[in-house]
Amino acid sequence: MAKQAENKSLQKLANLQRQHKGLINLMPLQTGGMLTDAAREVLMEFGDGYSVCDFCQGSLCNVTNPPIRDFVQELLPQFLGCEVATITHGAREAKFMVMHSLAKPGGSIVVDGNKHYTTVVAAERVGLNIIEVPNSGHPEFSVNVNDYAELIKKHTPTLILLTYPDGNYGNIPDAGRLGEIAQEYNIPYILNGAYAVGRMPVNMEEIGADFIIGSGHKSMSSAGPVGVLGMKKKWEEAVLRKSGTHSNKDIELLGCSVRGVPLITLMASFPYVRERVQHWDEQVPKAQWFSAELEKLGFKQLGEKPHRHDLLHFDAPVLYEISKRVRERGYFLYKELKERGIWGPQPGLARSFKLSTFAVDEEQLGFVIDAFKAILNKYS
Amino acid sequence: MAKQAENKSLQKLANLQRQHKGLINLMPLQTGGMLTDAAREVLMEFGDGYSVCDFCQGSLCNVTNPPIRDFVQELLPQFLGCEVATITHGAREAKFMVMHSLAKPGGSIVVDGNKHYTTVVAAERVGLNIIEVPNSGHPEFSVNVNDYAELIKKHTPTLILLTYPDGNYGNIPDAGRLGEIAQEYNIPYILNGAYAVGRMPVNMEEIGADFIIGSGHKSMSSAGPVGVLGMKKKWEEAVLRKSGTHSNKDIELLGCSVRGVPLITLMASFPYVRERVQHWDEQVPKAQWFSAELEKLGFKQLGEKPHRHDLLHFDAPVLYEISKRVRERGYFLYKELKERGIWGPQPGLARSFKLSTFAVDEEQLGFVIDAFKAILNKYS
Repeated sequence: MAKQAENKSLQKLANLQRQHKGLINLMPLQTGGMLTDAAREVLMEFGDGYSVCDFCQGSLCNVTNPPIRDFVQELLPQFLGCEVATITHGAREAKFMVMHSLAKPGGSIVVDGNKHYTTVVAAERVGLNIIEVPNSGHPEFSVNVNDYAELIKKHTPTLILLTYPDGNYGNIPDAGRLGEIAQEYNIPYILNGAYAVGRMPVNMEEIGADFIIGSGHKSMSSAGPVGVLGMKKKWEEAVLRKSGTHSNKDIELLGCSVRGVPLITLMASFPYVRERVQHWDEQVPKAQWFSAELEKLGFKQLGEKPHRHDLLHFDAPVLYEISKRVRERGYFLYKELKERGIWGPQPGLARSFKLSTFAVDEEQLGFVIDAFKAILNKYS
Repeated sequence: MAKQAENKSLQKLANLQRQHKGLINLMPLQTGGMLTDAAREVLMEFGDGYSVCDFCQGSLCNVTNPPIRDFVQELLPQFLGCEVATITHGAREAKFMVMHSLAKPGGSIVVDGNKHYTTVVAAERVGLNIIEVPNSGHPEFSVNVNDYAELIKKHTPTLILLTYPDGNYGNIPDAGRLGEIAQEYNIPYILNGAYAVGRMPVNMEEIGADFIIGSGHKSMSSAGPVGVLGMKKKWEEAVLRKSGTHSNKDIELLGCSVRGVPLITLMASFPYVRERVQHWDEQVPKAQWFSAELEKLGFKQLGEKPHRHDLLHFDAPVLYEISKRVRERGYFLYKELKERGIWGPQPGLARSFKLSTFAVDEEQLGFVIDAFKAILNKYS
């Protein structure tokens, strides 16, 4: 690399700043991951390298100071409704480790048509065939879990997985019904709750799943990346199997997973997160009201109606029309919202975009609705 | 879980504090991972969940704001002496992804007798047989890389790996000679530089390795966990192969690896880390002097002599004798040092323990030597 380019790249590292700090945040990937004050404090406290491992006795989930053991072995199972829990680098890494433990290359997995792309990539990494239960298509894109049964009979897969809710439409499929189907066919059932665990009440046992997966940075007020994996006791021996030569080391975690600060933020935020899921009944009407208000502006909410999650997907033909005739193209929406102190749709998207109402109150949402009105007026 | 136990566990989460803050740090796992001021600032700036992904266009290592792309695609390859680099959750995850990409279950890998335990666990996770080049045993435990040749001829492994230096004795094997052997037998060569990259000059191409692995939290002044993986261009297609259905997603990274704050601390500290490796020639004599001073107290330094790394392993029969007759047993050493403002040997160890001189100057080391003298006097 030329010296000049190198210096320029180094210079950029000297001033790393986040452009969206302090804005009203409607970004679905981010609204459930904003840190609590307690989490901010532990960022500094445990920021240095391997700080969480000061009192390591050989296994991350057994560390008693800080109280990782209590958190993972007592609080998390109770919270997730499972018998055994562990910490992963994130939801995708949890999916991979379950698939890698239970399935063999050439095996197959049945997944919902609204699965996250990482479900596919994790299955590819293991070498699994992916069989998809299609969604209902535009505009609801809903998944009928009864459709799993036929595909299970036809393909005899090793595993099934359901995304609850999905990250594209915020649809909440009938996870409990799929639990019955899983039991009927005696097939291990993974519930990917990256947008559920930490936002809304969800209980693996009640649903009848074998595995439940959550994301710290998506929905548990944690720094990224960190995830949680809960399971039935019967799977512990397979998924948390120990090394043949190092008997206290989990093979699938390569010994220990998140040996650093994201885990501590997850722990520091947990009392708050545990409490906030009890207030989910305030989140749903807020999202529905916001959706209805945006529909009055000519936007069209995709996914289930009435909607039962804060993640909302809109088609916005009126904004698309504007984007076709302005210099910034699709970026005009990002720019207009940012100027009004709002961060939400992915930069570049105007025709169709996702928003989450999770982190803001009705007053702020009113401000957002007014901002959309003002933008429409400006370009009309 | 009983309500009372649950409340007690929740209470513990309300006050997460690190006991070793501000002490003189000689802990080998930690001396290379202490954050720079710049890294501390970005912890707060990018602490919230998925903040580093504000401007994601589909792939972490292609994000331009913050300048991850420049860092990973320009600065890191130049720093590591490789053609292609990527970001991993840590050194162990880098080892696994290389093994998982290039080897098949039932294959084999030749490793040095001083390998980190995660090398073994990563190989187990892939299903590889591990063939070990033994070290020379007590007291030097040195690895003669020429011994790889015979084992390669005998076992025709898929891969070879060398730990450079190892984390138990701080021995620096002849990595360049192993590069010649790897070339002679045309076998991919992984250099695990978790205690080298970020501390001392190390260049993959000069050594003749195919892969180089570093650890952010161990040796690059980063929050945990994060790692770097460099490779020859010829391996990119295999190790960084893309998903068949999502063409911009790396299968082995499950799309993206460290989508959060440890990566940003790695980037913020990088200009400093890049500079400090140029001062390695000051580190080695400091370690040698410290080792000689402790040997005068009756400790015995294990590993190579003269020593060429800051990681030092001591047998301390004089401390062991004390530990046998005090109430705290082996913990007396941890306690006595902590009372003197020093954090180093793992709590409980007194007979044999590791220290690193990397993060402290000679004056502080003088203070540490005096502390050991005072402890010996106190119990004599």
